[in-house]
Amino acid sequence: MNTTPAARAGYRTLDTGSLGSWLAALPAVRERLGGAPERWTVREVGDGNLNLVFLVDGPGDSICVKQALPYLRVAGPSWPMTLERAYYEQSYYAAVAPHVGAAIPRVFHYDPERYAIVMECLTPHVILRRGLIAGHRYANVGRDIGDYVARAGFFTSDLAEPFERKFDRIARFAGNTDLVRISVDLIFTDPYREHPRNRHTRPHLDCDVATLRGDAAAKAAAAELGRRFLGETQALIHGDLHSGSIMVTDADTRVIDPEFAFYGPLGFDLGAFLGNLVLAWCAQPGLASRAGERDAYRDWILEQAKAFWTVFHDRFLALWRNEGHGDAWPAAMFREAGDGAALETVRRQYLEALFADMLGYAACKMIRRVVGFAHVADLDGIADPALRARCERSALGIATHWLKRRQEYRSIEDTLAALPEISAR
Amino acid sequence: MNTTPAARAGYRTLDTGSLGSWLAALPAVRERLGGAPERWTVREVGDGNLNLVFLVDGPGDSICVKQALPYLRVAGPSWPMTLERAYYEQSYYAAVAPHVGAAIPRVFHYDPERYAIVMECLTPHVILRRGLIAGHRYANVGRDIGDYVARAGFFTSDLAEPFERKFDRIARFAGNTDLVRISVDLIFTDPYREHPRNRHTRPHLDCDVATLRGDAAAKAAAAELGRRFLGETQALIHGDLHSGSIMVTDADTRVIDPEFAFYGPLGFDLGAFLGNLVLAWCAQPGLASRAGERDAYRDWILEQAKAFWTVFHDRFLALWRNEGHGDAWPAAMFREAGDGAALETVRRQYLEALFADMLGYAACKMIRRVVGFAHVADLDGIADPALRARCERSALGIATHWLKRRQEYRSIEDTLAALPEISAR
Repeated sequence: MNTTPAARAGYRTLDTGSLGSWLAALPAVRERLGGAPERWTVREVGDGNLNLVFLVDGPGDSICVKQALPYLRVAGPSWPMTLERAYYEQSYYAAVAPHVGAAIPRVFHYDPERYAIVMECLTPHVILRRGLIAGHRYANVGRDIGDYVARAGFFTSDLAEPFERKFDRIARFAGNTDLVRISVDLIFTDPYREHPRNRHTRPHLDCDVATLRGDAAAKAAAAELGRRFLGETQALIHGDLHSGSIMVTDADTRVIDPEFAFYGPLGFDLGAFLGNLVLAWCAQPGLASRAGERDAYRDWILEQAKAFWTVFHDRFLALWRNEGHGDAWPAAMFREAGDGAALETVRRQYLEALFADMLGYAACKMIRRVVGFAHVADLDGIADPALRARCERSALGIATHWLKRRQEYRSIEDTLAALPEISAR
Repeated sequence: MNTTPAARAGYRTLDTGSLGSWLAALPAVRERLGGAPERWTVREVGDGNLNLVFLVDGPGDSICVKQALPYLRVAGPSWPMTLERAYYEQSYYAAVAPHVGAAIPRVFHYDPERYAIVMECLTPHVILRRGLIAGHRYANVGRDIGDYVARAGFFTSDLAEPFERKFDRIARFAGNTDLVRISVDLIFTDPYREHPRNRHTRPHLDCDVATLRGDAAAKAAAAELGRRFLGETQALIHGDLHSGSIMVTDADTRVIDPEFAFYGPLGFDLGAFLGNLVLAWCAQPGLASRAGERDAYRDWILEQAKAFWTVFHDRFLALWRNEGHGDAWPAAMFREAGDGAALETVRRQYLEALFADMLGYAACKMIRRVVGFAHVADLDGIADPALRARCERSALGIATHWLKRRQEYRSIEDTLAALPEISAR
């Protein structure tokens, strides 16, 4: 595999045999694991598409090692992938760590030759998507992710700090083009045209897909969101904040896998989470073992969506009011009588625009999961194709509606209340 | 001067004595100048604030050498300035040269140790601002700058090329923070608050300035434009495209001095040129030697403003239709029946937004020249303070009107036709 274009001199894939001796040479890691390296146990547990993941248990603690592979794991060496994404992942963690506290794993070490990150082992956490498929409830997840996006977004924006620091990070993450290219193609382009990578539930959705690809207004709306994805440096965004990038327990919520990070519109992260909650909501009828079994759980999902936006909104606003020391709407300019009211109007409009962005990007993320290359287990796990297609059709209906009419919504309550009617069309 | 923070090892200011031997060691430059170096004549002609400028005449040709100084020349060593701006200037020239042809000077050599650019000598060109003050007409200047901004803007945007190339340039120009900081402070912040660097015609404009600084809506509009200045990467912009950065003859138009270049909103360049034409228009009554003497010339200035926007609009639209190969609104997505009409709607809206941006940024540029730190010779050259204040007040009135009501205008004709009435308020 070292013959792929992405491979680098000195790069070797780690394995369970050699991992211990490498970790033993890192004093802080060795101390954390505790005891003699011979007593450590190493397991490879990666089930993602892009990486090797090892869990190492020592007498003192456990740690996790994530190593980038030079190709898309699910596709094999025919789809090369830059190793540098490990660099961007740990750069993102480092950038947001001062602001989001324990909402990300602690990073203990980054190895630029191995493209490997040594970090906190999250246990007994599970991937949120699996929990949503299983119908489990995590009381704080909406609130926690709302708080997370508010903090990570606010503190990396022009609202919080001098632009010089933002420009420095923009330059660093501007190198993450291989991963951003995946988003550009798979989210904003391919789903809206014929492409061999696309797939959908056939023949049930053939007509829906043809309608979407002939809907010039929907395509123009998606393309406008795609243009802004590449043309706005509002905040450092995670870039892939779906329910598969979140690990949960009943009491804890963690954000992982930020290798798609770059400076873009904050609504993209907001929309990723909301869109994947709504995908889960659409999938529930297909996951129920009897009619109505998941009805209350669907309501719970929408409660989480509401908590997510509400907490994001309130937290972001509070941070802006109290810690708005950046170059955007500089405080020094707004110290006359009447300026406070004008600033509050600015803040309201800013958050209204973020709300519309959230719905628009949620729509893009939902559509690509139904008609594009990479689908989600929530829907793909529905074995009966006719039932799956009904769930997917409701997701497409909501997404297309949001793409074209997102500006009409002003509150999360009204937006969510309209979903049953829209999805039944 | 090498003790200032910006100074670098190996940096020496050039002088007329040493310049020839340095140039003689550059084969292409030596060949261009022709003859023996002893026959070359060297003159220092810089009258800007930031640089040393030498003209060198040889038997074959003349060349110009521009060297960055480590401080703001007009202020002296107390205001240090990064030498790196020479790097950004030549980087901008290199980036737009394939697209704008002879509208910029040819660059023959860049010396990264001396922070010096060896380039084409523009003769018999004069600075456009001086021509406007003198009441000279340059038949093509509006058309030429409209064409220039369309080409430089389009070809560095996501409309023209894959985002990877744009991101690469974004990263390069993201280092130009010292110059961008000047714009942020002097254009978007200081004019709207009390600051020791500010000045205005006293006491005549005291009341106008107090009104502006108490106008929360105008300040919020200026701050919103300032936020977008730092948060949109629409195109590689010149960053200082006023009438002092343009050299003209009756037949030729050249753009110079792009050291403020970075990725920002294209409306900033459009507004810089329009705003400085309107400043010249406001100044004409103060420059006339008898009442009415400059009336026809004022009409000519507005004709240039109209030609500028019209040519920009038509050129930009034609480029988009014919060379829109970028990631924004990707062509591959719009090949169904009806897509052409949708794309034309997108293009119309895009250009309408650019028009509003142009008026907004023009307003910001006009206001800072009347109440901020750096003024323009068009107005400063009016000796009688009462007369000057009347001209400046008309500029402030137009600018404040545009700041708050720019969205109401749809055509350049209506916008310009309204100026006499607005400026008389």
